[in-house]
Amino acid sequence: MSPTEALRMTKTVGEYLLGGGAVSQFEKVLRGQVDERDDRVVYLIDYYFRDGALARRLPLKPADTILYIDTTDEPTTEAIDKLVADLRPGATVKAIVGIGGGATLDSAKAASNLLTNGGAAADYQGWDLVPKAGVFKIGVPTLSGTGAEASRTCVMMNQAKNMKLGMNSDHTVFDRLVLDPELTATVPRGQYFFTGMDTYIHCVESLAGRYRHAFADACSHQALRLSREVFLADDMLSPENRENLMIASFLGGSAIGNSYVGVVHPFSAGLSMVLHTHHCVGNCIVMNVMDDFYPRATEEFRRMVDVHAIEIPRGLCRDLSEQKYRALFEATIIHAKPLANALGEDFRKILTYDKVVEIFRLM
Amino acid sequence: MSPTEALRMTKTVGEYLLGGGAVSQFEKVLRGQVDERDDRVVYLIDYYFRDGALARRLPLKPADTILYIDTTDEPTTEAIDKLVADLRPGATVKAIVGIGGGATLDSAKAASNLLTNGGAAADYQGWDLVPKAGVFKIGVPTLSGTGAEASRTCVMMNQAKNMKLGMNSDHTVFDRLVLDPELTATVPRGQYFFTGMDTYIHCVESLAGRYRHAFADACSHQALRLSREVFLADDMLSPENRENLMIASFLGGSAIGNSYVGVVHPFSAGLSMVLHTHHCVGNCIVMNVMDDFYPRATEEFRRMVDVHAIEIPRGLCRDLSEQKYRALFEATIIHAKPLANALGEDFRKILTYDKVVEIFRLM
Repeated sequence: MSPTEALRMTKTVGEYLLGGGAVSQFEKVLRGQVDERDDRVVYLIDYYFRDGALARRLPLKPADTILYIDTTDEPTTEAIDKLVADLRPGATVKAIVGIGGGATLDSAKAASNLLTNGGAAADYQGWDLVPKAGVFKIGVPTLSGTGAEASRTCVMMNQAKNMKLGMNSDHTVFDRLVLDPELTATVPRGQYFFTGMDTYIHCVESLAGRYRHAFADACSHQALRLSREVFLADDMLSPENRENLMIASFLGGSAIGNSYVGVVHPFSAGLSMVLHTHHCVGNCIVMNVMDDFYPRATEEFRRMVDVHAIEIPRGLCRDLSEQKYRALFEATIIHAKPLANALGEDFRKILTYDKVVEIFRLM
Repeated sequence: MSPTEALRMTKTVGEYLLGGGAVSQFEKVLRGQVDERDDRVVYLIDYYFRDGALARRLPLKPADTILYIDTTDEPTTEAIDKLVADLRPGATVKAIVGIGGGATLDSAKAASNLLTNGGAAADYQGWDLVPKAGVFKIGVPTLSGTGAEASRTCVMMNQAKNMKLGMNSDHTVFDRLVLDPELTATVPRGQYFFTGMDTYIHCVESLAGRYRHAFADACSHQALRLSREVFLADDMLSPENRENLMIASFLGGSAIGNSYVGVVHPFSAGLSMVLHTHHCVGNCIVMNVMDDFYPRATEEFRRMVDVHAIEIPRGLCRDLSEQKYRALFEATIIHAKPLANALGEDFRKILTYDKVVEIFRLM
């Protein structure tokens, strides 16, 4: 199927271009949103692409802005506020295009909400706190796994509150997606594995949860099948498997947008907050010690790790100060919804301080 | 999960309320679209619900309009034009809510497009002919199978052109969906089977096609699994199976929105145009004689028919006039895209006039 024959599913999966060449097709996706030659479009691009080769394929107009997003660390509320302050001067932003991994996509979603709603990023961390629709936004993932392209959140670290939380809102969802598996062709092996595993973990957590949801289950089942195809195969990076993983990531994100994660994500959020571990690496570190909670998935996860000879960091939390353990505990246990989903409303009886520290010590 | 805890996936699956009570929740779904007390919302409701019990559960305001859609026959371009003419007087329509089966949902989609774009329904039959976004529209299926809730088309019969074709456009997609399996509790057995089978057939056709699409395949695979769960079970109408079928219908519609149907739908369209057979009954009549094209699925279909002791009409086309056969042939062969998807660009070499008539005679 050639790019021009590409069909669309929903307003969300706006374009799915199997033939590649997606990034040159924005005029089509933007049609009806950006009518005037001088309507301003902001492109937020992962700084991995800062050599400009990708940007040169965009149909840029003089009014448009390109900003490269430093994704060394995950988005913070402060960084988002600064980004929005940088975007405010000049012509009204008619559309935002996020091109990158989860951090870049989440930055685009947060900036879109803030440009129309005003205020600071931290004001909207929580559930359904965004009053108005954001600027029209398009997501273009260049890395598969987080599901940020499908989800109704944009995760940000809030250092002041020792909290990692997104703007969970219908308004956070992208208006259009451009999915092109060619954009993941240059992802390094390790990053491909760690990030892709986010999808696998989403689905494991969602399907083992107490809050079941038929739509989420359907998406999770299919995403899980695709993840297994990818990660139990010898060549996880083949074009076919990159395509499978891109679809799995979208479906996994759709699943999680209708259900909750479980034990892995709260512990991983603890690692992010206290030790600045990247989300997807943190997930894998946690998944590696989940025998008590997800025994079969933990075993399958280790098989996938073995197939691709991935090194999961260990020893990270073996000897920390009491203060650090306390911070890890707090940053984990704060995620009441996913933990109640996994363990019931009485999750604090299972995840006592001692138990949580014991689990962290295994990592 | 209680209604208030319901989460959302995408802008399209706006609400998915497992707990039921969806139709009383429109204020939530409409928030941000209908701000003023006197903003007008039009509810198009399948006349199956004309006793008013369902309408009484809607949060109606004085400015709102309820219209019951006669779905005895499938939508025609003329009927849509008349509907829009009826809606034009009075306050601007801020949102359209379609509550019903495929015919009602398609009517809502078509009316939404026409209210903002003007002109007549027939002007937009084809691919990507709708220039502007329609009125904000919400779909509430009360019957599962057609995928009208997910698709980017709204099928209408155009008698003048002997053609059954929709407005295939991104603008035709619903802005929000409210999926509530409780709404399918009163569907008669036969209708439930015939309509539900549309999903099964969509997926069979899509997966056997030449134009493959990873996203469509993923949706089709899961929808097919769910359809089998429903229709190979003894109790296809159990609450669990009604939920399964509602999800399958959405996924099947999403699949078909990214791919093409195959041989069944063109023949079924022929039956609709010439003999006024309803879409879903027509599909089953055709599926029953598809041994040459989909042998395994035809066999599985017959097993499903047997499990539920469904009577598939036969003898419909055994003795028709030469003129009728000619009309059936023309109304079938006009669907070049699906037929090329199923049989290749040279489909006319396989589907000669004699072959097509031979197949119709089997029905």
